[in-house]
Amino acid sequence: MDYVNGPGRNHLFVPGPVNIPEQVLRAMNRNNEDYRSPAVPALTKTLLEDVKKIFKTTSGTPFLFPTTGTGAWESALTNTLSPGDRTVSFLIGQFSLLWIDQQKRLNFDVDVIESDWGQGANLEVLASKIAEDKSHTIKAVCIVHNETATGVTNNLATVRKILDHYQHPALFLVDGVSSICALDFRMDEWGVDVALTGSQKALSLPTGLGIVCASPKALEASKTAKSVRVFFDWGDYLKFYKLGTYWPYTPSIQLLYGLRAALDLLFEEGLDKVIARHARLGKATRLAVEAWGLKNCTQKEEWFSDTVTAVVVPPHIESSEIVKRAWKRYNLSLGLGLNKVAGKVFRIGHLGSLNELQLLGCLAGVEMVLKDIGYPVKFGSGVAAASAFLQNSTPLIPSRI
Amino acid sequence: MDYVNGPGRNHLFVPGPVNIPEQVLRAMNRNNEDYRSPAVPALTKTLLEDVKKIFKTTSGTPFLFPTTGTGAWESALTNTLSPGDRTVSFLIGQFSLLWIDQQKRLNFDVDVIESDWGQGANLEVLASKIAEDKSHTIKAVCIVHNETATGVTNNLATVRKILDHYQHPALFLVDGVSSICALDFRMDEWGVDVALTGSQKALSLPTGLGIVCASPKALEASKTAKSVRVFFDWGDYLKFYKLGTYWPYTPSIQLLYGLRAALDLLFEEGLDKVIARHARLGKATRLAVEAWGLKNCTQKEEWFSDTVTAVVVPPHIESSEIVKRAWKRYNLSLGLGLNKVAGKVFRIGHLGSLNELQLLGCLAGVEMVLKDIGYPVKFGSGVAAASAFLQNSTPLIPSRI
Amino acid sequence: MDYVNGPGRNHLFVPGPVNIPEQVLRAMNRNNEDYRSPAVPALTKTLLEDVKKIFKTTSGTPFLFPTTGTGAWESALTNTLSPGDRTVSFLIGQFSLLWIDQQKRLNFDVDVIESDWGQGANLEVLASKIAEDKSHTIKAVCIVHNETATGVTNNLATVRKILDHYQHPALFLVDGVSSICALDFRMDEWGVDVALTGSQKALSLPTGLGIVCASPKALEASKTAKSVRVFFDWGDYLKFYKLGTYWPYTPSIQLLYGLRAALDLLFEEGLDKVIARHARLGKATRLAVEAWGLKNCTQKEEWFSDTVTAVVVPPHIESSEIVKRAWKRYNLSLGLGLNKVAGKVFRIGHLGSLNELQLLGCLAGVEMVLKDIGYPVKFGSGVAAASAFLQNSTPLIPSRI
Amino acid sequence: MDYVNGPGRNHLFVPGPVNIPEQVLRAMNRNNEDYRSPAVPALTKTLLEDVKKIFKTTSGTPFLFPTTGTGAWESALTNTLSPGDRTVSFLIGQFSLLWIDQQKRLNFDVDVIESDWGQGANLEVLASKIAEDKSHTIKAVCIVHNETATGVTNNLATVRKILDHYQHPALFLVDGVSSICALDFRMDEWGVDVALTGSQKALSLPTGLGIVCASPKALEASKTAKSVRVFFDWGDYLKFYKLGTYWPYTPSIQLLYGLRAALDLLFEEGLDKVIARHARLGKATRLAVEAWGLKNCTQKEEWFSDTVTAVVVPPHIESSEIVKRAWKRYNLSLGLGLNKVAGKVFRIGHLGSLNELQLLGCLAGVEMVLKDIGYPVKFGSGVAAASAFLQNSTPLIPSRI
Repeated sequence: MDYVNGPGRNHLFVPGPVNIPEQVLRAMNRNNEDYRSPAVPALTKTLLEDVKKIFKTTSGTPFLFPTTGTGAWESALTNTLSPGDRTVSFLIGQFSLLWIDQQKRLNFDVDVIESDWGQGANLEVLASKIAEDKSHTIKAVCIVHNETATGVTNNLATVRKILDHYQHPALFLVDGVSSICALDFRMDEWGVDVALTGSQKALSLPTGLGIVCASPKALEASKTAKSVRVFFDWGDYLKFYKLGTYWPYTPSIQLLYGLRAALDLLFEEGLDKVIARHARLGKATRLAVEAWGLKNCTQKEEWFSDTVTAVVVPPHIESSEIVKRAWKRYNLSLGLGLNKVAGKVFRIGHLGSLNELQLLGCLAGVEMVLKDIGYPVKFGSGVAAASAFLQNSTPLIPSRI
Repeated sequence: MDYVNGPGRNHLFVPGPVNIPEQVLRAMNRNNEDYRSPAVPALTKTLLEDVKKIFKTTSGTPFLFPTTGTGAWESALTNTLSPGDRTVSFLIGQFSLLWIDQQKRLNFDVDVIESDWGQGANLEVLASKIAEDKSHTIKAVCIVHNETATGVTNNLATVRKILDHYQHPALFLVDGVSSICALDFRMDEWGVDVALTGSQKALSLPTGLGIVCASPKALEASKTAKSVRVFFDWGDYLKFYKLGTYWPYTPSIQLLYGLRAALDLLFEEGLDKVIARHARLGKATRLAVEAWGLKNCTQKEEWFSDTVTAVVVPPHIESSEIVKRAWKRYNLSLGLGLNKVAGKVFRIGHLGSLNELQLLGCLAGVEMVLKDIGYPVKFGSGVAAASAFLQNSTPLIPSRI
Repeated sequence: MDYVNGPGRNHLFVPGPVNIPEQVLRAMNRNNEDYRSPAVPALTKTLLEDVKKIFKTTSGTPFLFPTTGTGAWESALTNTLSPGDRTVSFLIGQFSLLWIDQQKRLNFDVDVIESDWGQGANLEVLASKIAEDKSHTIKAVCIVHNETATGVTNNLATVRKILDHYQHPALFLVDGVSSICALDFRMDEWGVDVALTGSQKALSLPTGLGIVCASPKALEASKTAKSVRVFFDWGDYLKFYKLGTYWPYTPSIQLLYGLRAALDLLFEEGLDKVIARHARLGKATRLAVEAWGLKNCTQKEEWFSDTVTAVVVPPHIESSEIVKRAWKRYNLSLGLGLNKVAGKVFRIGHLGSLNELQLLGCLAGVEMVLKDIGYPVKFGSGVAAASAFLQNSTPLIPSRI
Repeated sequence: MDYVNGPGRNHLFVPGPVNIPEQVLRAMNRNNEDYRSPAVPALTKTLLEDVKKIFKTTSGTPFLFPTTGTGAWESALTNTLSPGDRTVSFLIGQFSLLWIDQQKRLNFDVDVIESDWGQGANLEVLASKIAEDKSHTIKAVCIVHNETATGVTNNLATVRKILDHYQHPALFLVDGVSSICALDFRMDEWGVDVALTGSQKALSLPTGLGIVCASPKALEASKTAKSVRVFFDWGDYLKFYKLGTYWPYTPSIQLLYGLRAALDLLFEEGLDKVIARHARLGKATRLAVEAWGLKNCTQKEEWFSDTVTAVVVPPHIESSEIVKRAWKRYNLSLGLGLNKVAGKVFRIGHLGSLNELQLLGCLAGVEMVLKDIGYPVKFGSGVAAASAFLQNSTPLIPSRI
């Protein structure tokens, strides 16, 4: 029944789905329950309250859709916009491309700001578009906080500043799929109107929850948005929130308990410490890449992502061979290069429930794969660079002192 | 962390979500995996092949959406129809009502054939509408195979006969949420164009998979259907089927392995034997209801459902009190009466991974609750009626002989 | 990989091993840990403190041996007695027989007081032996609190009274394997010197922990007891207790966490309420047996066991056929008649994590099996008798109010 | 409920208990079962047959005791020897010391051959003792195959040669706790009379099974051996083997299914390949230790252990500080130095379900801890030495090609 064997543990370093902590696996190891009993609403209530903390919002309204990130995108867009509405969207990699594709297919008028893959969103162009848009034809600015395909993190605070500077009322929609719970994200402070993530990313759960959070302004917009929606409609949820039964249709009992456990772990470690841990592991990974003499796909430090690093391979190497080899020989799962960067980069995901030694094992594995594939890496070089940094910066684990 | 305690096992007799077999819980007790490795496609391939068997189709194309039954409805409709298209739909209970509501919100022109709650779909009216529709304005006939709110099973073979008799090309869309894997269902033989179910029903999995199966005619229709769709689009899946990677976005690894285990159990028992078991348990439940002197909400035997029985309570009793009491005192989860039959019926779900003694325990529990609530039930009467039938009709468990 | 299949849940009504609550299964679903880290001693400390509560002792010292009840017996005897020591032991069924056999093989001089199987320990004979033993040649009185083979509960308070009356210093050793956590047991009040149980009984864990509790007098005796012992030696444990590392050899991490969860559940329900629940379920079972016109193997009410009922079948029926049939046809596990009562009785275990509806399902199953096997049972009769009693006596589940 | 938290996975590198593969965790995630049903014997039969393969015996008789290695020792000794019998035993580290202590407490006349801790068993002294023992007063030679405290593997083939050379009939008893399933072990070829291991070692299960295998000669000896034993008696098992019910007392259902899964994994990988993998990981570890400029506690290459490496720290460093620090800061569990080598060595366990990248992560962790503690390690040096070797020697994972 298993399709992946091999001694020891799998080394899962794709940028999602990520490793699930044992505590979460345990919480989900359960039979179904009647979601109309008093117990499931009681649990749900705590989840809705606590999930706001990962968005850093007090005024937002969260929705736990039984879907994936793609569904969460669709929910964000269809609840706030009407067909024909103009959106501004940034094309900087495969996932922003897919979101733009979705926006087009949902019949929005997408104004695409394109950058090289490896660059961040071009906020100067955004500023000029916003400046020019005196009549407020732009209904929403859609941005991927962290482009998973290239390891690029965009500056959301600047987007807010631009909108505020021009007093532009456009909605601010953010894909936080590979950022929320791992990178600094401040929904209220940055005036984000809809933020969303997926359970299998930094929350370290199985796939199956598309978590969407709407600002009061977004909720207001949903009352008049004419995009067709039923499954993804916020209104149905709000109706059941009022009733105190919460669910317009059947939720996954297992994922609800899993989310409870995942949030408990996050708060126990401390959200800010979780973000600091991601910063530490991200930096260690980049130091290793540098020590190997390889280039980060991300072109400037300001965009470096602490959840995923896309590594550019030399021209004579096919990066998908690295990914294949890692999987077949060392039980190591790395991310492929996608679309424009297919064959040119491989990706190391370093998000979710992860610690220093797991990452160092991965880096040592990448070194062996690089050698396998003919790249003249010096064994231990990346690990040394990463270790030197980590040994200086890793705090004691509070629960163990 | 648990919101439902009490000694011993929960007795889950809502008509979904249902009890998950231990084998399935075990199969899902696993870490995430990279769904882009060669392993997940290999697994997926077996699932897509085998899932066709539960629909009894060889020509159909299945889709495993990370969603619920509501999402599966939306997928069935939006992939085959265009806004303004006329559908014929039967209103016979809460779930057919909700599907009709969805059809309206998706901008179809829904021609509703209403019956009393407790009756089956009025196929005579359908026949006359089909007969009249010489110009083929009806694009689809939408029917819930088994109305979970009232315990009514509709006759799908007759629907097909009507369409064939008038050589009407309308698509035949079937909600099999509480029927497939439990009641006799024959996609190919009955010319069903789209059939769908949810994982938490007779498949006995957690919620999270909306399983949709499309006939070649439905696939053809999807090429021109103009309803807006992205997450639920079949085309995206078909593209990835061709590539052999299968998934346009991240699936739940746990549910894939769970589905593998659930299918293995189904085939091991034998789909026809599973259906026979449901017939046995359904009949036993109805005999108990009769012995208690209570009425089945379903008005005629031809509509009796073998997956759920809605029991009408005497006028002076509030059925929701029965459900509350069962849960609070005996750890027994029953289904509430919904909408029009709220307060008037309670429901016993008898579908999925279930056996004789579990059902008899439930029936004994219902007897105690009835007494609790003031109904003059004779203790043991329902159990006796059910037992006499079951003791005569239950075969030996093949794997134990 | 499974050797027992069949739809739905297994109905496990042997008097151990018993059903494991989901919370306990979850707690045990974990990887190994280093038992020499600071974490395992911290956990162990809470276990040793809390496990005393199930013995109702404050002065006792508990030991968690990685063994079974048979090993716990051996630990109780070899730590307190020397070869040739005279013990008084009661032969009333298969398990007391096995313990006596062990005592003989460990070279004690066993003075056996035999009763009919179905009777309790003959305490009058004990009294006369104690009265006569002026020179205190009797070193220990060994008694099985609850004889699992016949469903007989002995009166431990009377044993203590006899010893006290004659101011006899004999050690009082009690097998509480099928009583502790289910029947009223008071180590300190009754002056029990060694009490023991196994994890797979009323604690509702897997097999693997032999839990032994020693009074100060027993500990004192262990200093001079000359029986050979190493694995089962208390001294090795006491040495590690002092060091604060607790384990002379490797414990099962999973069972430690499982025990933690099992104790938490027990205390949450309340030990006295757990005992009351067993009394309720025991009585209900006996009422059913009576309604079937069958005899309880236990000859007097004072000995009726609330954890297991041995049911005598009519002479022309072979009781093992009932057990076989129950397993093969209804997925119901009952206990066989053992040794002297083989073929003559079958046993219904009603201990551990169990509730009313599970038991009623079992009773309904037994009715069908009886009919299968040719006994003219009236369907529903036992269930009715049990239900009438339970419906009157079952309290609301506190955590659900 | 958890006593060990911290983000990411624990890095468990003590020489037992070791990491449990997910497949085994899954197999054990189950409710109890009636061990007297036909299913458990059917499962047990396959286990007894297959477990012989890990001992490389066809003539041996295995026993699966619900106990630990310490209990397995006791079973080996008490079933084959009588009080006063002379044994020859080698004192080379903490575990051989404990076994010798047990032998003494069980009243055997132990003839101890002592070596420096870090040396193997002195087989020359054995040879001279055997040579001198014309009257065959030596009843058993007891040897620890792999001394876990010092990382020393003894040469069992030579022991057999010595016994054969002098045609000495002494029983040959082997503690294979940290060798069997990991190091080359050949019960039949080497004429081992009793071999034993524990489930939490190379079998990668939880603690709880003491697996003992007896040669025909050992079985014969058990008929006359006068050591007192009940729980550990082979005779009771043999009686139940004959009956086909296999268990004299209650086994752990979960461990039986776990053992089934563990054996399936072992045979799937191939026992010889498992042993080769241990050789590879052992060598890699030793290369790292050398690169760090540290000494292996094992004094000669012929004794190097492929399951555990004891690393000697410089005199000014307290090795237990390394172990503490590793656990508190990096979630890394290493083995302490025990007894004579306490404070002087720390141990890296590299046995059981383990792969290259896990080991490299551990080695990187040790480097950071060494630096933490003030040892001037060069970052990456050990990893580089190990990686260079592993990259050359690691085969592709067969199930992934």
